[in-house]
Amino acid sequence: MELIKKPVTGMKDVMPAEAELREHVMNVIRDTYAGYGFRQIETPAVEHLANLNSKQGGENEKLIFKVLKRGEKLDLSSAQDVSDLTEEGLRYDLTVPLVRFFSAHQAELPSPFKALQMGSVWRADRPQRGRFRQFVQCDIDILGDPSTLAETELILATTRALGRLGFSGFEVRISDRRILKAMAAFAGFPETAYDEVFIILDKMDKIGIDGVREELLKAGYDEGQVEKYTKLFGVEKSDEVPGAEAVRKLISDLGDFVEAGVEEDLTGIMECVDSVKDADFDLVFDPTLVRGMSYYTGTIFEISMPEFGASAGGGGRYDKLVGKFTGQDVPACGFSIGFERIIMLLMERGESTELKSKKHAFLIEKGMDAEKMRAIMKEAEELRNRGECVLTARMNKNKKFQKEQLAEQGYEDIREFYNN
Amino acid sequence: MELIKKPVTGMKDVMPAEAELREHVMNVIRDTYAGYGFRQIETPAVEHLANLNSKQGGENEKLIFKVLKRGEKLDLSSAQDVSDLTEEGLRYDLTVPLVRFFSAHQAELPSPFKALQMGSVWRADRPQRGRFRQFVQCDIDILGDPSTLAETELILATTRALGRLGFSGFEVRISDRRILKAMAAFAGFPETAYDEVFIILDKMDKIGIDGVREELLKAGYDEGQVEKYTKLFGVEKSDEVPGAEAVRKLISDLGDFVEAGVEEDLTGIMECVDSVKDADFDLVFDPTLVRGMSYYTGTIFEISMPEFGASAGGGGRYDKLVGKFTGQDVPACGFSIGFERIIMLLMERGESTELKSKKHAFLIEKGMDAEKMRAIMKEAEELRNRGECVLTARMNKNKKFQKEQLAEQGYEDIREFYNN
Repeated sequence: MELIKKPVTGMKDVMPAEAELREHVMNVIRDTYAGYGFRQIETPAVEHLANLNSKQGGENEKLIFKVLKRGEKLDLSSAQDVSDLTEEGLRYDLTVPLVRFFSAHQAELPSPFKALQMGSVWRADRPQRGRFRQFVQCDIDILGDPSTLAETELILATTRALGRLGFSGFEVRISDRRILKAMAAFAGFPETAYDEVFIILDKMDKIGIDGVREELLKAGYDEGQVEKYTKLFGVEKSDEVPGAEAVRKLISDLGDFVEAGVEEDLTGIMECVDSVKDADFDLVFDPTLVRGMSYYTGTIFEISMPEFGASAGGGGRYDKLVGKFTGQDVPACGFSIGFERIIMLLMERGESTELKSKKHAFLIEKGMDAEKMRAIMKEAEELRNRGECVLTARMNKNKKFQKEQLAEQGYEDIREFYNN
Repeated sequence: MELIKKPVTGMKDVMPAEAELREHVMNVIRDTYAGYGFRQIETPAVEHLANLNSKQGGENEKLIFKVLKRGEKLDLSSAQDVSDLTEEGLRYDLTVPLVRFFSAHQAELPSPFKALQMGSVWRADRPQRGRFRQFVQCDIDILGDPSTLAETELILATTRALGRLGFSGFEVRISDRRILKAMAAFAGFPETAYDEVFIILDKMDKIGIDGVREELLKAGYDEGQVEKYTKLFGVEKSDEVPGAEAVRKLISDLGDFVEAGVEEDLTGIMECVDSVKDADFDLVFDPTLVRGMSYYTGTIFEISMPEFGASAGGGGRYDKLVGKFTGQDVPACGFSIGFERIIMLLMERGESTELKSKKHAFLIEKGMDAEKMRAIMKEAEELRNRGECVLTARMNKNKKFQKEQLAEQGYEDIREFYNN
């Protein structure tokens, strides 16, 4: 029988150089968050469809890889639709499994619980360049801390990890869902219109302020409201990085439309991060920041890389999500690092994970005498005992090519062993 | 809506202490094999059912989690059976994906190709204690090396990894499928009976030589043949570890029934490993070793831990498997480490992965003044810069309990910060 050689549609094989880079990045992330007291957890790839289809996953719920029932549970003849055939699916994110994990094990976990997750998720998205149906997500969440300490730490730890991976000069854009809503209220939009207004605002990056104005008008909003709304964003045109001062200015303009405490929260995070941060980045107030998921309740943030059009990570506070599942609210705040994008950027930079140790290759002639073989292997083991890398391999017929390949792989010491 | 809190049947959540142990073990394994020039690769969790159902996976093919087709491909009304509903499934081992990977990328890979894989596999087995439907496999394979250098290195590297994980005094049992066959031929069994004979022989551990004799007789084999056969195993009763000498003795007894070269291969591996090995273990010739999978063609081996009834890993040479998929034979030899069993053993021993660095916990009173907060966070960041771990957390109402929990987690320096 013939094998199908290609991976299934939209998923990829990872070659050694990339696999090693991925491991390296995971280790840096793991190590950095461990320095902040985050603990790693793992959840199964397969999750209850009832949990996955909970209306918190947005569009992703349409993209679930569903697992066929087995054995007696599977009755093809009586099946009316897909729900009769399936009850489990592959997870499409790490948030639903985290909430399930937390609700199952809360009694055994410290409070607050600082969780790190790195694992594959699956989405049956239309395959396109650089986008795969299986990819790794890296989520960091603090459950049980209502204070801005959570946001502050998430930003400090995440930017430190990026710094250690060689990134600098990037931006973390920050805002608060409560400011977003206050701005819409201030402009006079009805609360029922917020979702649509935010979807249009979210395009600011691509279509600019004039595009946003145009789309809002086209959507039928009152010209006066649209004018009042867009004017709020027009201010930030100075060269200065909009920091805590910009927050104070905007909130003072918005007056009573903003909940009490928002100014203190946001400026507190920004000034604290600014004064103690380890990595080279700017924390920037960006009132146009929306973040798609509807479950955010407070602070939201996103990483922008200059080399990179899109976001390389983001997150925010979601104080009501756990409660939706368990009936009891738990304050929560999380950051999701765009792991695959970071790998892509590092690959494009030609980043590789060099073994720091010396690399030897021992090429051994075919039919080597047993006693000589033992002496060769003994030498190899002794070098390995010293932490060095020794590849032993039979000598190929095309020795020249073999040696060229080995040199390309970084073997600096290539030795040949013959019977005589 | 209510969340289902438990993981799906047969799969498990991994708590922080175990997750960290798992990472530690993976890092030791990765690091050890890197010292032998093995390169890591990754393949998707989802694989073509056509590849999974290739009759190489034995019983595992019955245990596949199948993925439901999506979109236009899924036509419930016309579906006659499961094969109309599915074309992909979760991999049940790492061997099928490895062979697919190799056949797809052979041109870009060095020869021989030394591959390390660590990843989850899924089997819809009946759930039982310590056995899960999602578990990690760790496979090491050398493709393209026909010589015993492959076996020698696999055993040296694997036992070194086990040694570094703290295991000692274990056994690696070794034999050769060609000896297994020669013994059956020598006794006079017809070739068609081999499979059944080996299945009975494989129970030696549990039922002893008398049990094997009894079952062979019950299966209807000739008493003379059974006597001749079981006598071959009766010899090894001395206190001495059966090494290369035992191989020579048995092969000399078997005479022409054994292919030329087998003796040299097996004794060569054993004497080389014995003279250069790093870890504390015995390499033992065990002519009763069978190894289930039918694809083995030569050397076979298995790790026995004294603490552990069952095998903690095993493997062998499978020179014909790649050819069955691709039409072109490639010599191959592999070792699969029983990752989950090793984790279980280490957990039972109370092994934990201590952060070597100092662990501080900063407990911060609610409503901490912004400026003081910055000073606290600065101090935390400076300790992290030195590689130490600092957990910052708001002070809980039950501070005593919080401090006890932290002490349990290994926080030796617990400081409290108040506004005044």
